[in-house]
Amino acid sequence: MQTSLDHTLAALADPTRRAILQRLAQGEARVTELADPFAMSLNGVSKHIRMLERADLVRRRHAGREHFLSLNPQPLDEAAAWIVNQRAAWTARLDTLEALLRAEDAAAAASRRRKRSPRKQKK
Amino acid sequence: MQTSLDHTLAALADPTRRAILQRLAQGEARVTELADPFAMSLNGVSKHIRMLERADLVRRRHAGREHFLSLNPQPLDEAAAWIVNQRAAWTARLDTLEALLRAEDAAAAASRRRKRSPRKQKK
Repeated sequence: MQTSLDHTLAALADPTRRAILQRLAQGEARVTELADPFAMSLNGVSKHIRMLERADLVRRRHAGREHFLSLNPQPLDEAAAWIVNQRAAWTARLDTLEALLRAEDAAAAASRRRKRSPRKQKK
Repeated sequence: MQTSLDHTLAALADPTRRAILQRLAQGEARVTELADPFAMSLNGVSKHIRMLERADLVRRRHAGREHFLSLNPQPLDEAAAWIVNQRAAWTARLDTLEALLRAEDAAAAASRRRKRSPRKQKK
């Protein structure tokens, strides 16, 4: 079963679709305007737009025979949250690991000092 | 041509692969350990792991006949940066738009006041 997060990330995983979103961040646009900068058929661009609509990253407004597309950035928040949380979990684990290794190092060093200078310790 | 960001986002666009990454955030694991929680063949899980390796999100260490997998979170940074920047660009545009609309509203209200009470203005 595909979740909305799956659709968002799959929609973002293509440079043409990311470029379309970057264009729409400047304001709404017609399909033909979006297709212009790409060496791609209108049909090809339409397929990309449908992937973005499925992910609810792009919304369509009809005005007579014209379709205007605009960006809906809300799904980006869920995607960003997942990535940032994952990053934080990993960093937290690394910090714990580092603290454990440091504690082990310190214990080993103390043990070495005791073994090397038993007389000093007796003084 | 697929970029590393494409590979990262495509790798993240699947709940099984995200669950594998979440497991690996706790520490390295064998392929069999990763497969355990999923109702999936070892072969199925291996395919997901190869997608994660292609994106460099997962690295493999060989110890004799055993393979240990670990998380490399670095590609997450690029993905997070893209999403956050995109979000920021959109928010900046909305702020500009809102400021423009407010300025227009204020101008329209001032114009209405002038039209409704021409006598007061003459006083």
